[in-house]
Amino acid sequence: MSKGTVVLAYSGGLDTSCILVWLKEQGYDVITFLANIGQDEDFEAARKKAESLGAKKVFIEDLRAEFVENFIWPAAQANAVYEDRYLLGTAIARPCIARRQVEIARKEGAQFVSHGATGKGNDQIRFELTCYALYPEVKVRLMSDYANCFIFLYSYESGILENPKNHAPADLYLMTKNPEDSPNDPDVLEIEFSHGVPVKVTNVKEGKSKDSPLDIFSYLNEIGGKHGVGRTDIVENRAIGMKSRGIYETPGTTILLSAHLDIETFTMDKEVRQIKRGLDIKFAEFVYNGFWYSPECEFLRHCIAMSQVNVEGKVQLSIFKGQVYILGRESPKSLYNEELVSMDVLGDYDPCDASGFIRISAVRLREHHRLQGYHGAKQ
Amino acid sequence: MSKGTVVLAYSGGLDTSCILVWLKEQGYDVITFLANIGQDEDFEAARKKAESLGAKKVFIEDLRAEFVENFIWPAAQANAVYEDRYLLGTAIARPCIARRQVEIARKEGAQFVSHGATGKGNDQIRFELTCYALYPEVKVRLMSDYANCFIFLYSYESGILENPKNHAPADLYLMTKNPEDSPNDPDVLEIEFSHGVPVKVTNVKEGKSKDSPLDIFSYLNEIGGKHGVGRTDIVENRAIGMKSRGIYETPGTTILLSAHLDIETFTMDKEVRQIKRGLDIKFAEFVYNGFWYSPECEFLRHCIAMSQVNVEGKVQLSIFKGQVYILGRESPKSLYNEELVSMDVLGDYDPCDASGFIRISAVRLREHHRLQGYHGAKQ
Amino acid sequence: MSKGTVVLAYSGGLDTSCILVWLKEQGYDVITFLANIGQDEDFEAARKKAESLGAKKVFIEDLRAEFVENFIWPAAQANAVYEDRYLLGTAIARPCIARRQVEIARKEGAQFVSHGATGKGNDQIRFELTCYALYPEVKVRLMSDYANCFIFLYSYESGILENPKNHAPADLYLMTKNPEDSPNDPDVLEIEFSHGVPVKVTNVKEGKSKDSPLDIFSYLNEIGGKHGVGRTDIVENRAIGMKSRGIYETPGTTILLSAHLDIETFTMDKEVRQIKRGLDIKFAEFVYNGFWYSPECEFLRHCIAMSQVNVEGKVQLSIFKGQVYILGRESPKSLYNEELVSMDVLGDYDPCDASGFIRISAVRLREHHRLQGYHGAKQ
Amino acid sequence: MSKGTVVLAYSGGLDTSCILVWLKEQGYDVITFLANIGQDEDFEAARKKAESLGAKKVFIEDLRAEFVENFIWPAAQANAVYEDRYLLGTAIARPCIARRQVEIARKEGAQFVSHGATGKGNDQIRFELTCYALYPEVKVRLMSDYANCFIFLYSYESGILENPKNHAPADLYLMTKNPEDSPNDPDVLEIEFSHGVPVKVTNVKEGKSKDSPLDIFSYLNEIGGKHGVGRTDIVENRAIGMKSRGIYETPGTTILLSAHLDIETFTMDKEVRQIKRGLDIKFAEFVYNGFWYSPECEFLRHCIAMSQVNVEGKVQLSIFKGQVYILGRESPKSLYNEELVSMDVLGDYDPCDASGFIRISAVRLREHHRLQGYHGAKQ
Repeated sequence: MSKGTVVLAYSGGLDTSCILVWLKEQGYDVITFLANIGQDEDFEAARKKAESLGAKKVFIEDLRAEFVENFIWPAAQANAVYEDRYLLGTAIARPCIARRQVEIARKEGAQFVSHGATGKGNDQIRFELTCYALYPEVKVRLMSDYANCFIFLYSYESGILENPKNHAPADLYLMTKNPEDSPNDPDVLEIEFSHGVPVKVTNVKEGKSKDSPLDIFSYLNEIGGKHGVGRTDIVENRAIGMKSRGIYETPGTTILLSAHLDIETFTMDKEVRQIKRGLDIKFAEFVYNGFWYSPECEFLRHCIAMSQVNVEGKVQLSIFKGQVYILGRESPKSLYNEELVSMDVLGDYDPCDASGFIRISAVRLREHHRLQGYHGAKQ
Repeated sequence: MSKGTVVLAYSGGLDTSCILVWLKEQGYDVITFLANIGQDEDFEAARKKAESLGAKKVFIEDLRAEFVENFIWPAAQANAVYEDRYLLGTAIARPCIARRQVEIARKEGAQFVSHGATGKGNDQIRFELTCYALYPEVKVRLMSDYANCFIFLYSYESGILENPKNHAPADLYLMTKNPEDSPNDPDVLEIEFSHGVPVKVTNVKEGKSKDSPLDIFSYLNEIGGKHGVGRTDIVENRAIGMKSRGIYETPGTTILLSAHLDIETFTMDKEVRQIKRGLDIKFAEFVYNGFWYSPECEFLRHCIAMSQVNVEGKVQLSIFKGQVYILGRESPKSLYNEELVSMDVLGDYDPCDASGFIRISAVRLREHHRLQGYHGAKQ
Repeated sequence: MSKGTVVLAYSGGLDTSCILVWLKEQGYDVITFLANIGQDEDFEAARKKAESLGAKKVFIEDLRAEFVENFIWPAAQANAVYEDRYLLGTAIARPCIARRQVEIARKEGAQFVSHGATGKGNDQIRFELTCYALYPEVKVRLMSDYANCFIFLYSYESGILENPKNHAPADLYLMTKNPEDSPNDPDVLEIEFSHGVPVKVTNVKEGKSKDSPLDIFSYLNEIGGKHGVGRTDIVENRAIGMKSRGIYETPGTTILLSAHLDIETFTMDKEVRQIKRGLDIKFAEFVYNGFWYSPECEFLRHCIAMSQVNVEGKVQLSIFKGQVYILGRESPKSLYNEELVSMDVLGDYDPCDASGFIRISAVRLREHHRLQGYHGAKQ
Repeated sequence: MSKGTVVLAYSGGLDTSCILVWLKEQGYDVITFLANIGQDEDFEAARKKAESLGAKKVFIEDLRAEFVENFIWPAAQANAVYEDRYLLGTAIARPCIARRQVEIARKEGAQFVSHGATGKGNDQIRFELTCYALYPEVKVRLMSDYANCFIFLYSYESGILENPKNHAPADLYLMTKNPEDSPNDPDVLEIEFSHGVPVKVTNVKEGKSKDSPLDIFSYLNEIGGKHGVGRTDIVENRAIGMKSRGIYETPGTTILLSAHLDIETFTMDKEVRQIKRGLDIKFAEFVYNGFWYSPECEFLRHCIAMSQVNVEGKVQLSIFKGQVYILGRESPKSLYNEELVSMDVLGDYDPCDASGFIRISAVRLREHHRLQGYHGAKQ
């Protein structure tokens, strides 16, 4: 008699195949689930392998469009970067996959889920927190390790690279050309934004353009990859606090981040942006730590989305030898006032006001100085 | 009879020469002060011009070493970046210059200072706030505009670039090669840090090294410039809130920021760093807005310096075609634990603990879900 | 010939009467505006005085309901307290009054506004920033000082109290009984909240209740005043940074803050609240500094309002001798789970998980200890 | 043969006596440890009971002075309040006790520690995190529940009070008089601070004073208790995120917080204090969550201590019927400038500067308005 049904996040690789067999040996019925979020994978081979190993049902689903629109786009609105350098990739793929997995579990009446994410990494946390958040009664059944296999966003965390002093080998990177071998001519892109998300990307020289979310993001990945953009080698703090080295390739996200930062600063009030940046940083931390589906991330996504209402316009960028250069920007919602900023036009601006502004701002500094004088020299 | 003595920040250029003449016409004795903070300038020509225009005394002083040690180094400890993109340059040069200027004013018994910084820009604010903070009784006597003329850190904010859509012309940049024309071979540097500041830089291929602060920073500028590193075109929010475009070249600072971020994350606890980054961001804002000499910046510098006690070790970087790539890092103070992070060694780490950790972290998420269920579907 | 029309914030007192006369002497037509936001004032006498001094038109308007609903309620949602102790009163009255004043100015075609708020205080800033924000072309015409005269929220900042060591005299307070003379029996109130604002207040013993915003707030002021609630003597930092002493009476706001804090913590997720509290603190600072009408306060009000969707339920409080005691609370949207919290029921909670949670949380602490051991004893 | 030695946090009560017996049955040698941090306890009876139940050794130690100086004082410098209302009590007692317990464990060669803190509460977390932080190799051996028994700081979290609507019974409170029954005459205290901690407390009417840390804190507890100060009934978010009700008595800490807030604002620059308050809030959260001994709390304590260098002076307070009223304050380090603040003296302050300050501050607001006008009316 069956102990119940498990929905297993299945990759077709050795690790999750072992888990499949192990779960069946433990007496569970096993449904496998494999999400296509853009990785380079033989999905049909995976289906056959799962069936041959005794999976009761096999789900293979294309989540690419959903991943871009509902996960990458909100992260772009938040300029999501963890610890100043890691452009969240896997961290936002995991809740996308797990969300669909528990949906299948509910629909199929499965009480259990399983996966092959390691016990030491972030991915176990991200996977399981999503499951509990969306299907609180679910139980997790685990066996062992897991092979990372993403296409949109690669990460490499093992072997000789465990010594953080060792350089990464040139053949490690899969999505991006080595900048030394990349084209000697830049590509120039124009990215058009509305509500803080890209709605069109145009290759200015070629005149070619894309306008669906999935096409836009895939094209940014393609162009970024071609020019070696978005390689990073960092030591980061994992969710549980231990340090680990990560070597990442995020070509599309790197271009998108540059462009979004530019159009956002162009169209958003100084003080609003300062507050919003504080929210961005918290959002990236929560997401990195596995809390995409949580009351706090819901709240932050709402606040951040609200800040993006006027983030609209076009940014031109040059992509060349691993680097993204902003060339110019324009927007109907710009707060940039060419007349106000000009050195040659006074307009509404009275220089005498500036002197008053400064003297008032200095009242506090003078008091501080007075006190220091009174109480003796400062350290 | 003289109305008193003014110490004028003098550049030798047209603008401050006019101010000199104007101040004398107003009845002041004028002492000129010209600081060498690394700009490309004919200091002797400036001296002669000042004398010929009637300056009572002429001070020309080399502040380069002081600028690097007391201003650029603390900013590096703070990873000082304004609005995510502007690596503070002029913003930290101004208090360095003004500090010396009021010292001269006090010593020479001058009750007045003057400068040529524009009424609309940030520099007037930074200059005058420093003066009031360090010499509260001083009076500022102003005439007009000012020509920016820094070498370490250039900025261009005028003419056709006032339309933020227009691309910057190739000949605008003075310190950095166009990446398209830069060498096809990277330079590999090793930067050694102690207490969060560089104490040695070595060109790994050439075996050449520098170890005084001024030499280190000049060399980073040289290598960065050679490879076209640190060009930025941004629209930023000025101190008073209006937006303006800035095109900057910060080759040395860009390399330094990359290296410091890396060694800092490698040696600093996750939570400490998170707090410290919050302080960094505030520090950059205050400094940008002219408050280098203020109780808040003093406090922040103390806190940040304290966080740097263990920021020590070596970072290897490759500099190529406008980009800085981290290759590896090592430190006697590293919190990276190769054994703990390894996939193959369990050591002290019990996978069962991770499951418990996750289930406890999910208690709150489940409650949230329960409430949503009870009260109906969420938006 | 007239220089144009000025709308003057007029109180009927000596100061603004002088300004009225002065403005006419300067050649302006003067329209006076007096807002009733709850202060104890002879409005008809003020009207006659204004007319007798030559006002072209006299506006006297009852803004009490608007003040409560559009200013006090949003501040309550934000638990608005400046520097931990000052419950914003005047700071939110000023934008309410100035908003209506510039509305009148626009309607009457007046190019100028005037007021009697002192040059040193916060009120000038708050008044004028509101005017510029809502009517950018307006010009301010000033003469002199101003007599504070609010009823909802008194402040006293002069004379012997300028020495912060001196005690406030007993007869200073106008809205609140001296707690030593207040009733020996508490009043018990039940305040019902919806969306984070009170929708009903009931005196539990008397069975009396109020349910319009103005009635609710007036009743809280009445009961608070009767029991001597909400007296504060503080030294605060003014907008421009100088310190000044303020002695305040905020009986209604003090009760409301206690009740709102309680129901909010009861119904809001831990992490959401932590983020929201950060926004609250910023909001109070911006408002104190005069930026009620600003992009940043608009943004914050939206975010804070969003956080209040489930802040709903009833709080019982006892009001006695200057103090507010929370007695109990209930809510259909509570996140409090009596079963989960019980010591006697394990339910879903596995103690073994807690041990795992703690061991994982300690990984980082152990690493820190290891490093300290390795590198020698800690300071 | 013994499985090893356990140091057990022993209270003399039923729960920890059971644990003692259970540990012996499991084959451990047991050393009991009972800390005196001010609770009302028969320490000699506890010693005899422990010995009669077979404890190998019994440690009873007076940690009161250490608790006040090394735990309560730093918390006072940080104005430590969790979620705006809970003045940390138990949260800071736990690391004080556990620190000494692991010291004994190390000295006695014990590999194990044990305690009776519940699996659901905060205390288990705080206890065990401290143990792991200070003695990383230690193992925790647990049995069951635990009876809270502190004197300095009581908390009650059970039975009928688990329904958050029910009122707390009058006889629940142990340290504080019911304000209805407290004296009809206030006590007036003067508290003198140096470096942000109290160095002397004087009862102004009686002329009596205390000047050792333990005496000062005990006296504040006594006077606060006499007047019914510091009773709170809250629902709080526990470390693991679930909500629980807490009813607390913190008479001494409540008085100390009021006085410290007052002298701090009096002597600290506005912007420094704003930054420091952000650190305070984080500190209280970390401590509440059990991280007193952690890199982040060490860092915060250093920063906060640095901010207290000039927090010096005297505060007078009246204590009456559950309330603390600030009467006045004085300090040699005050930043309050009586002349600057006076309405009657202009001094250095030019009203014209204020107008300039405001107009410059409004530049951004006007731009915002312009954009709104251009793009149509706002919501």
